[in-house]
Amino acid sequence: MARVIDPGDIAKDFRKQVAQQVAKLTVPLKLVGFLSADNAPSQTYANYTKAGCDDVGIQYELRQVNKLALAAAIDEANADPAVHGIMVYYPIFATDQDAYIKDLVDHRKDIEGLNSYWVRMLYHNQRYVDAAKSKQALLPCTPLAVIKLLEAAGALRRSKAGHGVPLQGQTVVIFNRSEVVGRPLASMLANDGANVYSFDIDGPQLFRSGQVSEFKITRAEALSQADIVITGVPSREFPLVHCAEIRPGAVCLNFSTLRNFVPEIGDVAGVFIPRVGPMTVAMALRNTLRLFENYHA
Amino acid sequence: MARVIDPGDIAKDFRKQVAQQVAKLTVPLKLVGFLSADNAPSQTYANYTKAGCDDVGIQYELRQVNKLALAAAIDEANADPAVHGIMVYYPIFATDQDAYIKDLVDHRKDIEGLNSYWVRMLYHNQRYVDAAKSKQALLPCTPLAVIKLLEAAGALRRSKAGHGVPLQGQTVVIFNRSEVVGRPLASMLANDGANVYSFDIDGPQLFRSGQVSEFKITRAEALSQADIVITGVPSREFPLVHCAEIRPGAVCLNFSTLRNFVPEIGDVAGVFIPRVGPMTVAMALRNTLRLFENYHA
Repeated sequence: MARVIDPGDIAKDFRKQVAQQVAKLTVPLKLVGFLSADNAPSQTYANYTKAGCDDVGIQYELRQVNKLALAAAIDEANADPAVHGIMVYYPIFATDQDAYIKDLVDHRKDIEGLNSYWVRMLYHNQRYVDAAKSKQALLPCTPLAVIKLLEAAGALRRSKAGHGVPLQGQTVVIFNRSEVVGRPLASMLANDGANVYSFDIDGPQLFRSGQVSEFKITRAEALSQADIVITGVPSREFPLVHCAEIRPGAVCLNFSTLRNFVPEIGDVAGVFIPRVGPMTVAMALRNTLRLFENYHA
Repeated sequence: MARVIDPGDIAKDFRKQVAQQVAKLTVPLKLVGFLSADNAPSQTYANYTKAGCDDVGIQYELRQVNKLALAAAIDEANADPAVHGIMVYYPIFATDQDAYIKDLVDHRKDIEGLNSYWVRMLYHNQRYVDAAKSKQALLPCTPLAVIKLLEAAGALRRSKAGHGVPLQGQTVVIFNRSEVVGRPLASMLANDGANVYSFDIDGPQLFRSGQVSEFKITRAEALSQADIVITGVPSREFPLVHCAEIRPGAVCLNFSTLRNFVPEIGDVAGVFIPRVGPMTVAMALRNTLRLFENYHA
């Protein structure tokens, strides 16, 4: 039977580490959330962010502003030295205009790592913002949460040098290639040494050592090779990953809000991580601290 | 009867000016176009770019690369000192991934003004990249083309100081609020002093003096006040703007590939500009020269 990892347990450890660091700061660490759309998941995420901030000692302020006033409100928060982190709850316009908002958040306060400054660094595998390699680049919360959970599952072998290629020789399958999670995650795992088969409606792609290519492989072939299977398909049309498809002992992780594995997957998997949510919030808190240390300390 | 302006005539004047400046340069000015999608309009636009470059003495090189190799190809062109301008023919992925590509083009070579660096400057009405105000910021080709055509129509009163508020007191209606044309154009016209009513499927908005707000006004009311009517609706569902809707003498401009005005509009309009295309290409050439002067000379 698979070991089931509750992301809440791992998140607790990370929150504890963040709380210890925050307690040492001499100024109050402040995160501002912007809610501009009447959207239940965004409100829920804002509630979780507030609870997480309360837990670790970060001041959290939710600003509810009309979407047409959001750009000016972000400008103001960018310019305010008392604000160290900014989080925007998407979707807002649900058009290309959201991309403008993402890039409007100053990258030094963008705790979600969505600004093109951070996205470019991610896809170019640039891990530090300074030549002295003392300041780590920011990674987006959910992909980072997935990697930390895989690490907790024992799937990564950290090299002594710190950043080695802890997934060298491992094969990963990801069902999801969104710009928010699936594509950056595939790239990050490939940067860590894995061969990553990325599936979405446009067909499979192989991410390997900074290269991406179209790759003819079926779902069955890819799953039969996978050491790690990651799902994030928000559709009931997706055929659930079933026991006979995966390798015995594989690490299985789902970040979709829907179930993407059959309930019996734990009979075959080595580790099963059924959700990610609490770890995403923990990574947002950790990123807030990191940006403070990098730019505002 | 309205004066009908052929954008090809105005474009010719601009191309002539660019050609005169290019002739003075001591190094060959080089623009690279990237075509990654099998898309007829993109191929056509590439052909027009090449013809325009040939006309003004800019070297044009079209690079056809697989879309998965595009990011690396852009990195290479960004780093190549012999390449002064980069143009990417969209859509490529037709997903949020295109936003990543737009921001990947170095803003100093981004002749289309699509990088978030330029977009932020536009929406903040920052017109120069240097404190000495010697280097003008780049504006996106089609919105800039529209403004130059309105100027040719006599709709702008340039102040002696250069950048004044040449549309002060004028009312503009725009049907289109895309991130590529309608929204930046509305903002640019408002920065020039106009009251701009922007219509799209999400309802009307008023752009005025750097502020945007939802505004309850009907199409009929807005059109009856408009000194300038601009259309860019790529749908046959759009009810054509007809003669009784507009003010006699209004300046009417269409940038859609479809007709958005009734053929008789010239009976009532003061000036009619039926299309923009050749001016968009001329502005791309002008932007190539401007970036060279600002960053590579």
